[in-house]
Amino acid sequence: MAKFKLDEVDHQILDMLIENTRTPFTDIAKKLLISAGTVHVRVKKMEEAGIIEGSSLTLDYKKLGYSFIAYVGIYLQNTSQTKFVLERINEIPYVTVAHITTGKFNIFCKVRAKDTNHAKEIIFQLDDIDGVYRTETMISLEESINDKKRLMHSIFQEL
Amino acid sequence: MAKFKLDEVDHQILDMLIENTRTPFTDIAKKLLISAGTVHVRVKKMEEAGIIEGSSLTLDYKKLGYSFIAYVGIYLQNTSQTKFVLERINEIPYVTVAHITTGKFNIFCKVRAKDTNHAKEIIFQLDDIDGVYRTETMISLEESINDKKRLMHSIFQEL
Amino acid sequence: MAKFKLDEVDHQILDMLIENTRTPFTDIAKKLLISAGTVHVRVKKMEEAGIIEGSSLTLDYKKLGYSFIAYVGIYLQNTSQTKFVLERINEIPYVTVAHITTGKFNIFCKVRAKDTNHAKEIIFQLDDIDGVYRTETMISLEESINDKKRLMHSIFQEL
Amino acid sequence: MAKFKLDEVDHQILDMLIENTRTPFTDIAKKLLISAGTVHVRVKKMEEAGIIEGSSLTLDYKKLGYSFIAYVGIYLQNTSQTKFVLERINEIPYVTVAHITTGKFNIFCKVRAKDTNHAKEIIFQLDDIDGVYRTETMISLEESINDKKRLMHSIFQEL
Amino acid sequence: MAKFKLDEVDHQILDMLIENTRTPFTDIAKKLLISAGTVHVRVKKMEEAGIIEGSSLTLDYKKLGYSFIAYVGIYLQNTSQTKFVLERINEIPYVTVAHITTGKFNIFCKVRAKDTNHAKEIIFQLDDIDGVYRTETMISLEESINDKKRLMHSIFQEL
Amino acid sequence: MAKFKLDEVDHQILDMLIENTRTPFTDIAKKLLISAGTVHVRVKKMEEAGIIEGSSLTLDYKKLGYSFIAYVGIYLQNTSQTKFVLERINEIPYVTVAHITTGKFNIFCKVRAKDTNHAKEIIFQLDDIDGVYRTETMISLEESINDKKRLMHSIFQEL
Amino acid sequence: MAKFKLDEVDHQILDMLIENTRTPFTDIAKKLLISAGTVHVRVKKMEEAGIIEGSSLTLDYKKLGYSFIAYVGIYLQNTSQTKFVLERINEIPYVTVAHITTGKFNIFCKVRAKDTNHAKEIIFQLDDIDGVYRTETMISLEESINDKKRLMHSIFQEL
Amino acid sequence: MAKFKLDEVDHQILDMLIENTRTPFTDIAKKLLISAGTVHVRVKKMEEAGIIEGSSLTLDYKKLGYSFIAYVGIYLQNTSQTKFVLERINEIPYVTVAHITTGKFNIFCKVRAKDTNHAKEIIFQLDDIDGVYRTETMISLEESINDKKRLMHSIFQEL
Repeated sequence: MAKFKLDEVDHQILDMLIENTRTPFTDIAKKLLISAGTVHVRVKKMEEAGIIEGSSLTLDYKKLGYSFIAYVGIYLQNTSQTKFVLERINEIPYVTVAHITTGKFNIFCKVRAKDTNHAKEIIFQLDDIDGVYRTETMISLEESINDKKRLMHSIFQEL
Repeated sequence: MAKFKLDEVDHQILDMLIENTRTPFTDIAKKLLISAGTVHVRVKKMEEAGIIEGSSLTLDYKKLGYSFIAYVGIYLQNTSQTKFVLERINEIPYVTVAHITTGKFNIFCKVRAKDTNHAKEIIFQLDDIDGVYRTETMISLEESINDKKRLMHSIFQEL
Repeated sequence: MAKFKLDEVDHQILDMLIENTRTPFTDIAKKLLISAGTVHVRVKKMEEAGIIEGSSLTLDYKKLGYSFIAYVGIYLQNTSQTKFVLERINEIPYVTVAHITTGKFNIFCKVRAKDTNHAKEIIFQLDDIDGVYRTETMISLEESINDKKRLMHSIFQEL
Repeated sequence: MAKFKLDEVDHQILDMLIENTRTPFTDIAKKLLISAGTVHVRVKKMEEAGIIEGSSLTLDYKKLGYSFIAYVGIYLQNTSQTKFVLERINEIPYVTVAHITTGKFNIFCKVRAKDTNHAKEIIFQLDDIDGVYRTETMISLEESINDKKRLMHSIFQEL
Repeated sequence: MAKFKLDEVDHQILDMLIENTRTPFTDIAKKLLISAGTVHVRVKKMEEAGIIEGSSLTLDYKKLGYSFIAYVGIYLQNTSQTKFVLERINEIPYVTVAHITTGKFNIFCKVRAKDTNHAKEIIFQLDDIDGVYRTETMISLEESINDKKRLMHSIFQEL
Repeated sequence: MAKFKLDEVDHQILDMLIENTRTPFTDIAKKLLISAGTVHVRVKKMEEAGIIEGSSLTLDYKKLGYSFIAYVGIYLQNTSQTKFVLERINEIPYVTVAHITTGKFNIFCKVRAKDTNHAKEIIFQLDDIDGVYRTETMISLEESINDKKRLMHSIFQEL
Repeated sequence: MAKFKLDEVDHQILDMLIENTRTPFTDIAKKLLISAGTVHVRVKKMEEAGIIEGSSLTLDYKKLGYSFIAYVGIYLQNTSQTKFVLERINEIPYVTVAHITTGKFNIFCKVRAKDTNHAKEIIFQLDDIDGVYRTETMISLEESINDKKRLMHSIFQEL
Repeated sequence: MAKFKLDEVDHQILDMLIENTRTPFTDIAKKLLISAGTVHVRVKKMEEAGIIEGSSLTLDYKKLGYSFIAYVGIYLQNTSQTKFVLERINEIPYVTVAHITTGKFNIFCKVRAKDTNHAKEIIFQLDDIDGVYRTETMISLEESINDKKRLMHSIFQEL
C-alpha cells in the first residue's frame, strides 16, 4: 500500500501539535512563517489521510484512583474465536490495550484498575468470556515510562 | 494521600475534551450552560492539580511506516540496577512504555519499530545496556484495541 | 474505608500480647502503669473493631507427626468456579492457606501432611475437585522462617 | 526420633486452647472434670516437650493497613549461600514465611506489604541480598483461607 | 511401621551377593567363618521379610540393540485416572520405570527403545492411553551412571 | 558395530536367568534338554561378549529406610565440565542413575534418600559441585513401576 | 537396512553437483578424468538408489517479497491425530518444513510469510486444523545460516 | 527497497527449473514457445539480480547415514556476541540452518547428525563456543515435510 507523503512543513506542524494539541494554529503559523490557513489545510489533509486519527488528554490515573496496572495474557480454546473474544474484551473499559500475539498467549491485554480487588474482578470477567481458556497475569510495580512523544519526534526527524 | 475532588462539571468538561482535545472552550461552555471563562478556570485548575498532564495526538503508526510492535521482557542482573537501566531505556525513543513488573521479568517494555530488522536492532540495543542480563520478545500480530477513552469515560461516570 | 485508629497504649498492649497471648492483663497493666480494667477495655475494643480476630497456639507440627509441607498451585477450568472450588478446599483440613493468585495458578495452597504418601492423597483430593483442571506441587525441604511476630512488632512501631 | 506421647486428656486441652488461647485453666478443668492443677501440669509438660511453642494473636492485617500479600520465589547463585541468605531474609520483618524448596526456586517466601509500592521495595531488598540471583513474584488477589485450627483439630482427632 | 532388623552378618551376606548374586553360599560361609546352612537361613529370612525381592541380570542394552533411552513426562486429564493409566503403561514392556510425581507431570516414565523411530511409536502408545492428556519427552544422550551397588554398600555400612 | 549374535538357546537361558539369577545351571539344562556344560559355556560366552554385565539383588528400599526418591535436573555452567561433574556425582552413592540429556537439563539424576531432610543434603551436595549452575528437583510420590524383566523378555522374544 | 555403497568417484561427482547442479557432465568427466557416460551412469544409479532425490533452485525469498520466517510449535489434542494434522499442514504451501518432535511440541513447523499480517493468517490456519490444540510461535529476526552444502561436503569427505 | 519485477515468462521458467534444475533450456524454450537464447538471457538476468542464488541437490540423508535431526536453541551471555557466535557456528557443517530469533532463545539452529552420540558431540561443540551461555535441544522423531517447491509454485502463481 502506497504511503502518504509528508513534507517538511507537515513534520514541523505535527512536531508542535504533539507537544500540545491545543496550540493555536496562528502560533504554529507564526513560528513556521506560513499562514494560519496553510496550517489548517495541512492538518485537515493529514486527518483525511488518516495520519492524524484524533487527539486525547493525558490524565494522571493515580490521582483519579486508578493506580493498579496489570498485563493479562489470554489463551483461547481456538483462534477461530479471536474476533468474538476481542469484541467481548472491547466491552470492558478497563482493558485499554489488546494485541493478538505470537508466543505463548493468543491475546495480550493491558488493564488499569483501582486496586488488587478491582483487578481480580476484571481478570475474572476476562476469564469468563466464552472461548477464553486461561489467563495469566503480570502486575506492574511501577509504570516508569509511558511516552509516545519521543517516538513521534524521532519519526518526524528521520522522515 | 488526599485525592483531588472533581465535581460534576469537571467530569463533563473532561468527558468532552477526551473526545477531542481541540474542542473550543466556547463550545464546551455552550453545551454545559456555563461561561467559557469557567471552563478555562476549571481546566487550568485540573492542570495545576496534575490531573490533566497534557494532551497528545493519536497518529496512525502504520501509515508512518511503524507497523511492527513488540513486547520485550527484560531480566536484570540485579534489581539495584533498575533505575540506571530505565534511564538508558529512556534514551531509546522506540520504547514507548516500560514497567517494573512482578513475575519473571524485571522490566517489561513496549517497542514500536518499522519492521523485523528494525526490531532486531532495538532489541540488541536493549540487550547491550549494562546490567541487562537477557531479554525475551513477544511480537504483536495485530493491535486490536488501543483506546483509553472508554476507560476515561467509565472513570468519570463512576466518580 | 476508614481505618480504626490505634493509639500508643493499644500498640504497647498488642506488642505484649503478641509475645504471649496468655500474659495476664494485670502484668500488662503494671508494665504500662495503667489499670487492668483499662487493658481489658482496650482489648475488648480492638476485638470488637475486628483488629484482634482471635488467638491461637503455635504447635510444633514435626513433633505431632506432620513434618511434610507442600505448596500446591491449582489451575481451574474456569475462574467462575473459584468460589465453589475454594469451598471444597475448605473441607480439607490439611490445606492451611489458600490464595487466589495472579501468574500461572488460579489458586495457590499450603498443605501440611504426615509424609510423601499422605501428601499424595491430599493432592489427589485437590485434583479430584470438580472444576480443578490440573495441580502442580512444590515441596518444602525446610521451613526456615515462620514468624508473624517480627511483622507485628514492625507494624506497631511504625504506626 | 521418638515422638512425645499425648493422651486423650492432652488432646482435649489442646483442642480447647486452639480455639482461644486465653481460656482460663479453671474453665478447661471444669469441662474435662479434672483439676485446674492438672491442666496446668499438662500444659507445662507440653511446653517443655516443645509441642506447644507459644501462642500468638490473629490480627486483621487489612485493618492494620497491610492488605498486600505476595509470594516471592528466590533463585540463589549457589545453594551453599542458603544459610547466609536466610539470615538476611530474617532481618526483613515483612517476610513472614520462608522455605527451602524443591522445584525451580531455592527459597520461597511469603511477604505482607502495605501496597504495590511497598511490595516493590521489599522485593528489591530481597533481590539485593548477596547471593540472590533472581526473584520471581506471584501476587495474591485474595487470601481465601488462612486457618490452622481445622488442621489442629483434625490432628487431635486422629491421634 | 517397624523396620526389620538386620545384623552385621546379614549386612556382610548382602554385601557379597550384591556384587555377584551367583556367589555360592559355601564361598560366603568360608569368608564370614560361618556355616553354609547359616547363610542359607539368613538369605531365606531376608527373602521372607521382603528385604530381598529377587535378583536380576545386568545386561548391556546397547549390545542387544536397545541404545535409545528417553524420559517421558505424562500429564493426566484427571488424577483419578492415575491407577488406570499406570495399568495401561504396565502393558508396555519398553517402559521400565514409572513414578507418580510432584511438579508439572503426573506420571514420569523411563523408556528404552531401539532408535528414534521406535521411541516415537512407544511415545505414541503412551499418548493414546485414555486419560493421558499430553506427554513431554527428554532424550538421554548418554547413560553415564546406572549403579545401585554403591547405594547398597553405603546403606549396609551405615546401618 | 557388528552385534553379537544370540541364538534361540541363548535366549532361553537368559529368559530363565532373568527371573532368578541363582537358578542352577542343571535346572536350566534339564528344561532346555541340553547339558549343564553347554549352559555354562553359553553363559560364559555371553559374559565375555559383554552382553551379561553381571547380576544384582533387587532389594526393598523402603524396608531399608530409603523410601524417598527424587529426580534432580542439573544445569551446568558449561558442558565442557560434564565429565568432571559426572565424576563428582559418581562419588555420591545416593545418586543411582545419571544421564546426559537433551532439553533443559544438562544432566538428569535419580536420587534415593531416607527422607526430606536427607534429600535436601544430597541436593545441596550436587549444587555445590564446581561447574553446577543450578538444580531443579521433582519428587516421586510413588514408584509405581520398576521392572526391567518385562523389557528383557520382550527383547528375547523379538530377537 | 543395508546402506548403499558410494565409492570415491561417486563422492567427487556429488561434490561437484552440490555446488552447481547444472554443471555439464562433460565438465565433471574432464575434471575426474573419466568419460561423460560414466558420470551419467553414476548419477542415474544414485538417483535410482534414492540417494539423489532431485534438485532445486536456491531463491532469494526476500527479493520475492517473502522476508518473514516463523517457527510454529503445535500441540495436538491427541497424538493419534498426528497423521491427519500433517496432511492438513501439507496443504499450506507456506509451511516448508514440519517435524514430529520430542519436548513440549508434538509438531514443529517452519513458515515463510510476506509479513506480520500474512504470518497471522497462516498461524490461524494452523490453529484451525481439527485436532490442533494450541500453537506457539517464535519469529526469526534474521536467517543467518541456511546452507546444506557444507554438510554435504563434510559427509562426502568422511565417507 | 525496490523489488525486481518478474514477468509471466520469468515465472514459467522458474516454475520449470524448480522441479528439475537440470531441465535443458531447449526443453523450457519449446514448452514456452520462445527461443532457448531467451531462456538463457532470462535466467542470467535473474541470477544477476540475485533472485536465483544457485541450485542444489536434494539428497536422502538417511541413506547417507544422517538420520538424526535436532533443533538447538542457544542462549547467549550477551547479544553483542551474536555475530561472533554465528561465525563459530558457521564452522560446524552439521548446523544447516541458524536464525536470530525472538522468544526465549537468541539463536536457533537445525542440526543433522548420524545418531544420538554424534548429536551429543555437536551440541557440546555449540555449548563450548565463547559467549554461549546455555543450549536447549528438541529432537525430531520424524521429518514429515521438507519441501520448498510448494511454496515456490505458490509464490509464482500469486505474483
